[in-house]
Amino acid sequence: MVSQNYFFKVKTPREVQNILKNTAEPLESESLELSEKLLGRTLYDDLVSPVDLPGFDRAIMDGFAVQARDTFGASPSAPAYLQVAGEVKMGEKASVQVIPGQAVKVSTGSMMPEGANAVVMVEYTDYLDDKTIEVTRPAAPLDYIVGKTDDMEKGELVLEKGHTLRAQDIGALAGLGITSLSVTRKPRVTIISSGDEVVSPEKEIKYGQIRDINSYSLSSLAKQAGAVSVRMGIVPDDFNSLKERMAEGLEKSDIALVSGGSSVGTRDVTLDVIKSFEDAEILVHGISIRPGKPTIIARIGSKYLFGLPGNPVSVMITFDMFVGYLIALLSGRKETAWKLQSVKAQVNKNVASAPGREDYIGVKIIKTKDSIMAEPLLGKSALISTMVKANGLIRIPLESEGIEQGSEVDVFVF
Amino acid sequence: MVSQNYFFKVKTPREVQNILKNTAEPLESESLELSEKLLGRTLYDDLVSPVDLPGFDRAIMDGFAVQARDTFGASPSAPAYLQVAGEVKMGEKASVQVIPGQAVKVSTGSMMPEGANAVVMVEYTDYLDDKTIEVTRPAAPLDYIVGKTDDMEKGELVLEKGHTLRAQDIGALAGLGITSLSVTRKPRVTIISSGDEVVSPEKEIKYGQIRDINSYSLSSLAKQAGAVSVRMGIVPDDFNSLKERMAEGLEKSDIALVSGGSSVGTRDVTLDVIKSFEDAEILVHGISIRPGKPTIIARIGSKYLFGLPGNPVSVMITFDMFVGYLIALLSGRKETAWKLQSVKAQVNKNVASAPGREDYIGVKIIKTKDSIMAEPLLGKSALISTMVKANGLIRIPLESEGIEQGSEVDVFVF
Repeated sequence: MVSQNYFFKVKTPREVQNILKNTAEPLESESLELSEKLLGRTLYDDLVSPVDLPGFDRAIMDGFAVQARDTFGASPSAPAYLQVAGEVKMGEKASVQVIPGQAVKVSTGSMMPEGANAVVMVEYTDYLDDKTIEVTRPAAPLDYIVGKTDDMEKGELVLEKGHTLRAQDIGALAGLGITSLSVTRKPRVTIISSGDEVVSPEKEIKYGQIRDINSYSLSSLAKQAGAVSVRMGIVPDDFNSLKERMAEGLEKSDIALVSGGSSVGTRDVTLDVIKSFEDAEILVHGISIRPGKPTIIARIGSKYLFGLPGNPVSVMITFDMFVGYLIALLSGRKETAWKLQSVKAQVNKNVASAPGREDYIGVKIIKTKDSIMAEPLLGKSALISTMVKANGLIRIPLESEGIEQGSEVDVFVF
Repeated sequence: MVSQNYFFKVKTPREVQNILKNTAEPLESESLELSEKLLGRTLYDDLVSPVDLPGFDRAIMDGFAVQARDTFGASPSAPAYLQVAGEVKMGEKASVQVIPGQAVKVSTGSMMPEGANAVVMVEYTDYLDDKTIEVTRPAAPLDYIVGKTDDMEKGELVLEKGHTLRAQDIGALAGLGITSLSVTRKPRVTIISSGDEVVSPEKEIKYGQIRDINSYSLSSLAKQAGAVSVRMGIVPDDFNSLKERMAEGLEKSDIALVSGGSSVGTRDVTLDVIKSFEDAEILVHGISIRPGKPTIIARIGSKYLFGLPGNPVSVMITFDMFVGYLIALLSGRKETAWKLQSVKAQVNKNVASAPGREDYIGVKIIKTKDSIMAEPLLGKSALISTMVKANGLIRIPLESEGIEQGSEVDVFVF
């Protein structure tokens, strides 16, 4: 006898991501001060340069600012002779002008004096007396100069809305004098473990009980994905307890996750609780993915609730594929692609799959001198050790019947 | 005339990394509580499983625990008939035993009763009356069971010392009941910007001055690399100011970074200050890398001091290659490889280089339907915009004269 709830309409992973994309709106902004805390945050607005950078022509070598034509043809045997009209000190406005036949001493980073259009490197000059240098190599116009708008120009679009800030971007903000910035608020994720057999890690366990793995792997994944994660503990598998804790989770967060036991009875309770919220809309109930098929996704107002399977491996895969994707959408991130970074490797075992289902399999990447191999770790999805031993994941596409030993695959690196 | 300081003995990037490897010792440990804060931290000791996981045989399907041989040959037309001797509730010890001809009801995750060696899925059973089921498909021994040590075995090495903790590892710790863990202390990195032309980002600037980019990109890079970063502001280019701030930086941290102007004079001051510390040992002075050649690395007691070039691009490259590498060593990380993750791409322009120097060039990765192209961003290393536009880096090896358009390269993704 198959329970009625087996007959939900299963969606493909792509369909599920599209549903999330079509329903999720980026969260509101918050203003942060310039600091390394901006790392990984998402730009709320386009960033337009408020100034020219560097804002004045700069020498980028130690030497002499000259008019290039004064040095044309110069060589060690026929040097050009120039009068030294002065020096530009670091951090000061250039006050001397360079007129034909003259040179002004400059350092790397100092302002170019007016009239000059090139820098001769100090290595190709020599003082004849206090006021005169000889130049033994010609300079071309613009040699060793950065122009006033060469780095950035006032009004230029520097970074687009939705960009995830990196170290260089934070450096650029400093360079432009931008000391506070609007970024999208971090999504809050609450995490509930359900199951009569689940106990907290610090407790002694009895036969039949297991410690709560999922709260900890999920809160770590949520943090890594750029959310604020709040663990809300363990709830027994009854309607009232679950409803109370889920209501609290929804109130405190943008996304509430419930990782339930995987038994039919437990799944039914989770579904009943979700349905009991007044404005609940069940978006997804079942996904053609392994592991992770019985995943439920609902929207309650502007908030999302996930009923995740109870197995530790299923939980991680479904998080990466759907919760992480939703966090990226709520964060307003332009790049929502799942695991951009992958390496090519050869699978060293046959792996079977069934068409109509996307399979995710943990692999151990083995680098040798000549090749990169991926060893599929074929464990049951109840085993966290499969993921602990893995340092990557491979995907077997929906339509495929498996991967043959020796074929090349993309490995998504943890 | 070439200044005397140009004649330092330049080392290859590989030599520099080896020097760091041979001198750096992992820092001491600290104990952290089980939580998502362990993410990215390094294991100080080997992690050996204190218990068996799950610790008892578990059913991983809803159904009936049976003796497999009782079901051999069962089919819809010739079902096997079994007496239901009881049920194992979730989270409870199995108290009934399965003897030949009997079955015990189990749920996904419940404890297996003694005597049984397989689970028949509920889908292939049907109740004939309260106490009798028919089984319409044979079960093989061990079907749908996870053994008591299948996930982890007491005494098993789960993770090696030096491993960087990921979400699944933190989940596994919870599963094993490990609620506090020794990890290597995070290295502290102090960051000083030097230069008479450098001003703090919140200040108005005058001609000849530029805002402090490097403090912010460096502190972000240090944070990203797993260190605690402390910005110590801007110091003018004179011996006493620099010495005072560097002494303070060394006192407060494991690694002090000074990003100086790139002029010869500035570099000389930095070098003089480093030499003036009583037990300073200059490990590196000049690296065959572009950008970043004038990098200085010294060891003062157990602490490290870096004199980094002043250009924003040079600073980032030398950080990644050497400071990030040192942070990994001090953190005790097993994996110190620079940027494990790369993608293959075709360079869409010729890029020249000089043999005897390793070149790093920012690229923009352009993904089309059929290919991944890398567009080299050939800018001066004084321009932070080069790095802002880039989403990856390519390396031209020491012995190469450049890369031809169309050749395949590894792009290290930011």
